[in-house]
Formats: sequence, structure tokens, C-alpha cells
Amino acid sequence: MRAIVKTAAGPGMQVRDVPVPSIGPSDVLIRVLNAGVCGTDLHIWEWDAWASGRLKPPLTIGHEFSGRIEKLGSAAEAEGVLLVGDLVTAEGHIICGHCLPCRTGNGHLCVRTRIIGVDRDGAFADFIAMPVSNVMKLDGISPEIGAIMDPVGNAVHTVLEGGEVPGSTVFVLGCGPIGCFAVGVARAAGASLVVASDLNPRRLELARAMGAHHTLNPSTDDVVARVREVTGGLGVDLVCEMSGHPAGHAQAFSSARPGGRVNMLGTPSRNTEVDFARDVIFKGLTLYGVTGRKMYSTWNAMQRLLKAGQLDPRPVITHRFPLEGIAEAVAVIKDGQAGKVILEIGT
Amino acid sequence: MRAIVKTAAGPGMQVRDVPVPSIGPSDVLIRVLNAGVCGTDLHIWEWDAWASGRLKPPLTIGHEFSGRIEKLGSAAEAEGVLLVGDLVTAEGHIICGHCLPCRTGNGHLCVRTRIIGVDRDGAFADFIAMPVSNVMKLDGISPEIGAIMDPVGNAVHTVLEGGEVPGSTVFVLGCGPIGCFAVGVARAAGASLVVASDLNPRRLELARAMGAHHTLNPSTDDVVARVREVTGGLGVDLVCEMSGHPAGHAQAFSSARPGGRVNMLGTPSRNTEVDFARDVIFKGLTLYGVTGRKMYSTWNAMQRLLKAGQLDPRPVITHRFPLEGIAEAVAVIKDGQAGKVILEIGT
Amino acid sequence: MRAIVKTAAGPGMQVRDVPVPSIGPSDVLIRVLNAGVCGTDLHIWEWDAWASGRLKPPLTIGHEFSGRIEKLGSAAEAEGVLLVGDLVTAEGHIICGHCLPCRTGNGHLCVRTRIIGVDRDGAFADFIAMPVSNVMKLDGISPEIGAIMDPVGNAVHTVLEGGEVPGSTVFVLGCGPIGCFAVGVARAAGASLVVASDLNPRRLELARAMGAHHTLNPSTDDVVARVREVTGGLGVDLVCEMSGHPAGHAQAFSSARPGGRVNMLGTPSRNTEVDFARDVIFKGLTLYGVTGRKMYSTWNAMQRLLKAGQLDPRPVITHRFPLEGIAEAVAVIKDGQAGKVILEIGT
Amino acid sequence: MRAIVKTAAGPGMQVRDVPVPSIGPSDVLIRVLNAGVCGTDLHIWEWDAWASGRLKPPLTIGHEFSGRIEKLGSAAEAEGVLLVGDLVTAEGHIICGHCLPCRTGNGHLCVRTRIIGVDRDGAFADFIAMPVSNVMKLDGISPEIGAIMDPVGNAVHTVLEGGEVPGSTVFVLGCGPIGCFAVGVARAAGASLVVASDLNPRRLELARAMGAHHTLNPSTDDVVARVREVTGGLGVDLVCEMSGHPAGHAQAFSSARPGGRVNMLGTPSRNTEVDFARDVIFKGLTLYGVTGRKMYSTWNAMQRLLKAGQLDPRPVITHRFPLEGIAEAVAVIKDGQAGKVILEIGT
Repeated sequence: MRAIVKTAAGPGMQVRDVPVPSIGPSDVLIRVLNAGVCGTDLHIWEWDAWASGRLKPPLTIGHEFSGRIEKLGSAAEAEGVLLVGDLVTAEGHIICGHCLPCRTGNGHLCVRTRIIGVDRDGAFADFIAMPVSNVMKLDGISPEIGAIMDPVGNAVHTVLEGGEVPGSTVFVLGCGPIGCFAVGVARAAGASLVVASDLNPRRLELARAMGAHHTLNPSTDDVVARVREVTGGLGVDLVCEMSGHPAGHAQAFSSARPGGRVNMLGTPSRNTEVDFARDVIFKGLTLYGVTGRKMYSTWNAMQRLLKAGQLDPRPVITHRFPLEGIAEAVAVIKDGQAGKVILEIGT
Repeated sequence: MRAIVKTAAGPGMQVRDVPVPSIGPSDVLIRVLNAGVCGTDLHIWEWDAWASGRLKPPLTIGHEFSGRIEKLGSAAEAEGVLLVGDLVTAEGHIICGHCLPCRTGNGHLCVRTRIIGVDRDGAFADFIAMPVSNVMKLDGISPEIGAIMDPVGNAVHTVLEGGEVPGSTVFVLGCGPIGCFAVGVARAAGASLVVASDLNPRRLELARAMGAHHTLNPSTDDVVARVREVTGGLGVDLVCEMSGHPAGHAQAFSSARPGGRVNMLGTPSRNTEVDFARDVIFKGLTLYGVTGRKMYSTWNAMQRLLKAGQLDPRPVITHRFPLEGIAEAVAVIKDGQAGKVILEIGT
Repeated sequence: MRAIVKTAAGPGMQVRDVPVPSIGPSDVLIRVLNAGVCGTDLHIWEWDAWASGRLKPPLTIGHEFSGRIEKLGSAAEAEGVLLVGDLVTAEGHIICGHCLPCRTGNGHLCVRTRIIGVDRDGAFADFIAMPVSNVMKLDGISPEIGAIMDPVGNAVHTVLEGGEVPGSTVFVLGCGPIGCFAVGVARAAGASLVVASDLNPRRLELARAMGAHHTLNPSTDDVVARVREVTGGLGVDLVCEMSGHPAGHAQAFSSARPGGRVNMLGTPSRNTEVDFARDVIFKGLTLYGVTGRKMYSTWNAMQRLLKAGQLDPRPVITHRFPLEGIAEAVAVIKDGQAGKVILEIGT
Repeated sequence: MRAIVKTAAGPGMQVRDVPVPSIGPSDVLIRVLNAGVCGTDLHIWEWDAWASGRLKPPLTIGHEFSGRIEKLGSAAEAEGVLLVGDLVTAEGHIICGHCLPCRTGNGHLCVRTRIIGVDRDGAFADFIAMPVSNVMKLDGISPEIGAIMDPVGNAVHTVLEGGEVPGSTVFVLGCGPIGCFAVGVARAAGASLVVASDLNPRRLELARAMGAHHTLNPSTDDVVARVREVTGGLGVDLVCEMSGHPAGHAQAFSSARPGGRVNMLGTPSRNTEVDFARDVIFKGLTLYGVTGRKMYSTWNAMQRLLKAGQLDPRPVITHRFPLEGIAEAVAVIKDGQAGKVILEIGT
């Protein structure tokens, strides 16, 4: 089968012909239909410090996908939940099930998580093998949307953690694809005011398309002042920190109201100086670090929002390429003009 | 000034000329613009067991209203928050501030609550005196909507308690005005599916106007079967029990999914037989009794939803009468063809 | 091997020689050391309506136990978590893992739960086969205590649900073994006042041994009046309803403070008449139905409390019998003079 | 009357004779019995940047106290809750009641808070005037303990926020008086393991006296390694960050388990460099900034714990001085050998 493979340590990826993966008794073989290209894939392409420290080539890349079930292992089949031909997506974090986080409802924080396309072969391929418990039926959601439920789920996790979105004010700081999805999730979840910021005007357009009431550009707007202005001087109930930049963190803490929350998803590549006294302690803030998607309450909420049509992530999808177009896909993302980029792999 | 007064023990109410109320240092005198007629007012009109046991005539009736500030007591003025001329509404439960519920964030459960129009003079009059801490600016919300924020707040409290509405399934059981408002609140708060039931087809029309996806009539529908059908067999996440009928309770418990919630607002006039083993314990249900509005987090969420236009309760308002039309107002409500009925008292 | 078997429809149980159970790849074979006799086992002995409707003889009885791992299936062994010789206990509810409750953190409410000793062969035997994911190491907890972690876990679930035990007032209504355990859990969890009631003076002795500050006997005490008296007139924060009697329910609702909780575990055999207006709605109560133990957060909290010595359930254990003494064990429980009764099966 | 007064900008304080404060209608005049000397009072004595930026001399200092009611304003008397002669303590944060935090259950985050002894005259005096709503009866708690319910309440707020203390593991990082109280609160609230750290061996002694299972000294212990060691490698459920030092922050984040909480009370005087990716986001941590005490749920929980004898803060009190001994009190605190220091002002 075809697969996009990191063949050796170093930048780039190759399209290669590799064997179809074999499956164990609790696994499912899935023919990949669509796959999403993620910022993580760029780090892997670039072979940055994180990637070179973690990946062990050769490895098939890709962790966001949808597909059609081709084959079930014996135990997977015995469960009777999934059938050959079902359209599905999957949680790409494969967890141990035994550690304390796994046993107490925090499987997304499993101390032995293995991620597809990072720690084991991934989804930029004609087929992928997945543990049956990670696989979910699309149940009417289109394969294209199914392919991006991983990052949409990141956004759902970020927006809903804290549980008080209806009637609230939300500031999405950083409008990459997940930030744009977060704008849509906040609107769908009943936020009364959604503000979004980014340095990139194209991304702010996408945020507006997803329903942002106000978009701010730090290069021209005093972001904190503007957030306070549109919230009666107090700041927002919830900041979704999607930028991962120290400057974003400072804006996030200053933009939250006393007693508010900052849910942090954007992964910083360097340290941030924090004035905890002024920004966290005296304000009574709650900060929360967002990892992955809650298994599987995030998925359940997301499926409901998508199926009911409350959330439509498609405006964020700006580019579609065949599997062989991976280099071009990476290029448009690096160029900064892309929202979400999709690979169209199978049918 | 004019006032609708329960002049003596027994049915009916009279429009009378009474003195404008005097105010203490922490009070506000409000010129009433609009007022809502509530089921409670019907009980008072009818002089049923509850009313005759609680009210001490003569008393001015009415607890849902909006108005314009006419005068402030010295301490109220010193606060500098409200000014003469401000358009306002008010929480009608006047609480002690000292009891444990008051001191621990449950003022709505104050053990010494006094309700306007029930325990002290109310709002069906040209003027009402209110403690300043109970008064809130309309801040752009129309006086007509302001007049019904008490029952809309009941709906907000009922729907939001539990904190997981976005992406959830909600069944509003009983479509009087508060039930209809609850349909709108659930939609505004991001519910993915809202089902509503009532025996009265006119009320189901109003529920549909407020956004119900499905409306059920127990006289022709197997309500529980239909709720399960539209929820994949499992039942809903949240039932808002607005009927107060034993039959409604049974449907509520059966319609909730395992681990679901039943938030109960409808006030029963008689006891219900409950199979706690089957309906509550083995299902892991949570039941919650809804009293009034949380002071003032319910009001804050409601104001946001109304001001953002996410929630528009106006389709539920079916009749408007002058103060002198109270008998007619009571008649249309008893007739069962009314949604919310408003008194237009001042301008 | 020896086993206590319900050989046929009808009262009683027999000690029989049956084959050692075989295990699948994800199972563990456990040599049983101790087992607890539960009220459920009495229903099965008596062959009451519930038992005759659910059990399909022949069936080995018993669902509370501890033991030593004898053998692991291939997949269970591959996990590397459990080893032959480990002392263990197990959650007796075997869940599907696929239904919405299972997928959203409510596995204890799985719609396809199968219980050992009820729906499949149980623990009153020399050996039992269990799915590896249900098995937990005792890790220093004694096998005798390990044998009753099922009912102790019921108590932990009942007391901790709601999350505000430290500094709270708790009323445990019904002092069977689980009620007595709940008294100890409430004390260990920092409750400031624990009141317990039962009709049986022997059980009240056990409740006092577990730390109850006050014990009440409804045959001589006005329970509700006394609870209010010791809580400054207001009622308790949390009622643990362990009686399952309609009279207990009435006391539970009246004893809870406004805004309080009633966590209900006792399984009623008949319906209760409830005045929802007075007892639930106007009081703003929360009722919660307790099923089983949360998987596995209840187990984690319980293990911590037991290992730290904060909770010692041993005073509740009043009788110990060999496996062959099952008839005698049932007799002492029916007699009402027993606390927890243990079978000493292996060593 | 006598009072400890900051008479002018600059270091030091003077004992002066000043007029007894006058009271408004909603105020209470309290004869001060005992008062606690706080780190804040040291900052004021030293006249550091914070103090000189906030205080406007002349001002009577002191914000932790107990006393006896001497006189009530007319409105305070009319409430009928407090009487002349009642032994009382008080919340020293005087809040506006109108801002969004005040109106939504976050009065401790009032945007217009005024603190006694900082923004208005305080409690190091024979008498203090307080708004009646801030005053609470001691109700059997000794005046000496009553005098330190402000810092004990800080500890209660820090430990209980998050709501899952029973059976949990807690690390108190920094053992000044509030840290030592936090150790006692965690034990009283049912924590299964309490670890405490400080550089000062005298403080670690006090932490052990309050019930710490393990005490660590960063000058000789690898704190993070030891915390992991005693928690099975995973880290603690809850860190109470009481040090306010960047080094403490780093230890706090590293010592918390995946999915754990860090409740931060220690006020840093400089910025901290944070690796949000490693320490917060990938670990799914929750950080929470602790300001003051929740009004008044923290007070309610604290009163229960103190009255039931579950929490005894007295081992932390190491020194007692008369009002005139303030210079000596400040000296022993600066010397680092004191736990809590009390002024004995009246009788």
C-alpha cells in the first residue's frame, strides 16, 4: 500500500510502498479515506528537537483520519459493535488502561500513551490498524469532517472544560485551525460573546466565518484593552489559549476576568515569565492544561454537535491534496495561508 | 396610586387606589411599566389552600415586573450604582442574608425568604418599593421582556443546573410559559436535541416556536417510547420537569438516560408514588429541586443570553392587558389558550 | 473444586463439587481466600421475586471476595500488571465498554452489566475466573478486608458523591453493614458530625464503633427532630439513605437541609409516596441514586483510605464461617444480630 | 483608645492614643481581644514597594482579630442576629456587593475590595468598627483561635478548592503559619498522605506537629524525587503552593500528578519562568490562584472543623505579646523562629 513515511532521521517525508499492517485480535483494519495534516506533522517534517527526540524512523506519519472498516480481529468482531464497511474515525492516543489516570477517568493523561503517526505507524497510508476501543462510527458525519475530529475534539475539550459556556464570554487567542474550531464550538455551546485574535488576517477571516463576534490583530489592536472594552471592563469568563506564545500567555492572563479560566492548548516552544501574584493569585484565575480529548466524553459531545449541525468545521478547510501532495500540503501550511489541510487518500 | 389588591380572604382581586409605598434608606421606589401574570397569581385569585394558608390580606399582588426608578433611599443612592430614571427589573425573593443558605451561596433557599406579591406588597401597581440589592438594570433589554425575567430565570435555572447542556439532549416536560422558555434556553445553551411535551396543542405550538425539535402530546404519543426513539434508545441527558403532575414525574424518570438528571420545577399539588429502586437508584439518576433563581448567577447568565439575542422569549407572550384587565388576564390563563400574559401598567 | 451453587429454581443453596472455571486470554483465575455474604445473597437464597426473575440456575453464588492469582490468560499476562501469586480483589460488575455510560465515565451504569454470582458464576468457590481489568491488587490490605471492598466501596460512593464532606454534617439512615461502613467513611473523609439511625440496637452499637457521634432509634427517637436539634435546626448537608424503606425516605428528605443532598443506596422493595413540592422542590434538594462503585475512582479513594488506616471496617465484621457454613451464615444475617459475615474459603 | 498606627510613610509603626471609631447604621463596634500578626503586617512595617504603593498613613494596622461586640448600629441591631457581648471574629475584606464577582458568588474577588488594616483602619487597637455582614460569632471557638481565622481560612480555601481531598495525597510547599494550618486542614479533611516542605527546620517541626506524614527540606532533600517516591512515582493529587518562590513553583508543578491541581496562595515578589508545555499542558494540570476566603462557605467549613475539634491550629501559635510588644512581635517573625504570633489586646 501507499504510505507517507519518515524513512530516516532528518527533514522531509517520502511516499513509499509498504506492507498493509497486520492486526491482532482486538484490532481493526481501516481503509483510510481522508486525513488531516496537523502542525505536529510539520514538526515531524522539519525534524525539530521534539521530533528527533521522540520519533524512531522508519514510521508512517499521520494521526487525524477517517476511513472504512476493512477487517476485524476476532475479539473485535466478537464485540459485535463494528462491522466491515462501517465508516469510522478514531482516537489516535492509544492508552495503557492500567495507570492511575487511566483508571480514574483521565485516560487522555495516560502515563504510557502511544500516539499513531508519532510512536507507531499512522494514518497517511491506504490502511491503518487500530485497537477497536479507539474506533468510533461516523454515524452520518461525512468522512471529510471525520478526518478532522481529532483537532475539532481538541477545540471541544478546550472550550467545554469548566462547564459554564452558555451565556459566557470567550476569547480565543490564536486562530490556527484548532482556534477557529474553538470559535465555532463556543458559538455552538451558547457563548454570548466570542472574541478571536491572531496576527494573520487570513486566519481572522476564518475565525469570522466560524462566528467570532470580534476579531483582533495584535499588530494593530491593543488586544487586552479591546477585550476589556467589549466585556464591560471586566475581561472574559474563558480564554482559550491556542497561540503557545509567551506574549499570548500574558494577554490571556490579562484578558480573563477575576475568577475566570484560561484553558491552555497551544504548545509553547519556550518558557514564559509569569507574574503569578498579579495575574493568577490576586485574580483568582484557574489555568488548565489541555491534552488531547477526554475519552470519550469529548468525542460524545463533539459527535452530537456535529450531527445536529450546530458545529460546522468545514469553513476552516482551505486545501485538499492527494496523498502524493504531502510536500505541497506542508508548504501551504508553512506559508501561513492555510486553514485546515486535508489529504484525500481513498474512496 | 392604582393597585391590584387581594382585599380580603376569598377568591378574586380588586383594583384599588392605595398610597404610594414609602421606602427605607436601602430601598428603591420603582414606577412599574410591565408586569407578568403567573400561575401563582391564579392560585391567589382562586384562594386555594396554599394561598389561604400563606397570604394575609389586604395585599397588593404581583411579583414579575419591570419599571423605572423613581426615587432612591439614602443608602441606595450612596452606592452609586442605580440612578433615578434607570429601567430595571428585580428579583422578587427578599432574603435575610444571615442564614446558612444565604451565607453559602444558596440565597434562593433562604429560610426566611419573603416574596413580593405573596408575603409583602407586590408589583401589580403603579409603584413598588424594593431593596436596592434586588434591583437590576435592564441595560438594553426591553421593559416587556424585563417584566418576565422572573419566570425566564426559572427556566434558566432549570436548564443550566448540572452544567452540561452543550451537545446534550433535553426533554422539557410541560409547556406552560416556563416550559416554553426552557425550550428556548436549552437551544440557546447549545443542546443538540430538545423534545417538549404537553397535553395542550396550543402550548406545543409555542414550544415549537421556541425551537423544540420534537413535540409530543401524551394524549396521542407514547411519550417515553418516543423520547427513547429519538435518543438512540437510551433516554435524554436532562429532563426539565415542568408539569408538576405524578404522571409527568413517571415519564420524567423513565425518559432520563442512566446517569442522567431530572431538574424539577413544576409544583405538584399532590404526592407521587416513586419506584426509587427502578427509576432512581439502578439508573444512577440525579434529581434536583428548582426554587427561584440563583442570586445572581442565574440573572447574569439570563441577561447575557437575552442581550446577545440568543434567547428571545417574546413568542411565548400571547396576551397583553391594562392593569384594569386583571380579571380578563386571569380568564385567558384559566382557559388554557394563553402563553405568557403581560399587564401594561405604566410608560 | 467446592462451590456454593444455586442448583435449581427455589430456596436454598448447595455446596457442590464443580469444575475449576476455564479462562480466556483476557481473564485471570483467582484462588478465593475470603468472601463476604451480602443481602443480595439472602434474596437469592430466599428465591424472591427479584432473584427468580434474574438468576438462571445452576449458578455459583457470591460477588464479594479476595484471593490469590493462580493463572493468567495470555493477554492478561502480556499486560504485565498482575502476576501469579498476587493477592487481589475485584469489581464484580463486568461491563460492556461500548455503551454511552461506559464511554463517558459511567461504567457503573453500563446498560449490559453482568454481575458475578448473579448473571455468571460467582465467588463462593475455591476458584473464580475474572476479566483482568476488573482485578485489583490488595497491595497490603488484608484479604479479609479485601473480601468486603465491594460493600465498603458502595459506602465510599454514597458518602463521597457530591464532593463536600470535609466539615459537613452527615446522617446515615440505616445501619446494615454498608451503613456502618458509611459512618466510618464519613468520619475518615472529614465530616464534622455523623448521625446514624436504625431500628436494631445491635446495629447502632456497630455504628458507634465506626464513629457515629449520635445514634438514633426510630422506635424511640423522633429522628427528624433529633437530627435538626444537633444541626442547629437546619438539617444535615448529606443524608446517606441506606434503609430502602418508604419511612426512611420520608425521614431522609425531612432531615436534609435546604440545598442538601440525599444519596440513596438502600434498595426499596416497594414504592414510596413523595411530596416533591415540600420535600424536594422548595428545599432545593439533590437526590442521587447510588449504583455500585465508580470504576475505578471509588476503588482508588477506598484503597487510599484503607491503606492509610483512616478507615477500618473490621469492627463491622461480626461472624466468620467456612464455605460449608453458608446456611449458618444466612441464618445469622436473617436473625438481625450480624454485622458483616465473612466466609473463610482458602488460605 | 490604644492603636498600632503607621503614622507616616516609612518603616516602623507607633503605639498611639486615637479616638474610638464611630459606627454607621450597618456597623458593629468590637472590643478587640486577640489579634494575629501576619506577613502582610511585616511588609507594612518595612514599608516595601507594595506597602508604600497602597497604604495611606495615618492608618491603624491589623486585619486578623477576635473580639466582643460593644455596640451595634441601628440597622445591625434590627437584624437581630448579633448582640452586645457576643464573642466574634470577622472577615477583613469589605466588598462592594455590586460588581460581577460579588453578584456571582466570588465576593472574595470583588473588584473594589477594601481590607482592614490596609485600606482602612484595622484591628491592632482596643476597638474596631466593622460592617455587620462581615462579623461572625465565635460560637464556642476560643478568642485566641478566633483571632487567626483569617489565615486558617486561607488554608481551608487552599486545601478544599477542587473538592477531592478525602483519600487524596497533598503536598504543602512552604510551612509558614498558613502552610502549617494547611497541613492540619488536609489531615482533618481526610487526606491520606500529607507531605510538607520548607527550608526552615523549626517550621518543619510545626508541620509535623500539625500532622504532616513526611517533611522535606530542599536544602538536603531532592523534594520532587521524594514526593514521587512516596506517591508510587506519580506525584500528588494536590499541591498547596505556600512559598511564593519561583523555585517552589517549579517543584510544585513537577510534584503534581498528571491531572492534578496546584492551588497557589504564596505571593511571589518576582516573576517565575514556566515551561507550560511540559509542566501544565502535557500534564493536564489545573492551577488555581487563592485569594482570601470564600464568603462565606470557607468560613462555614472552617467553623465546623474547629468546633468539632478536627482542626486545632494552636500548635502553630508560638508567641504572644501585648499590644505594646508589636516591635518584638515583628522581630521574632523576621528572625524566622516563629510560627503564628498573637497580640493579646483586651479581655
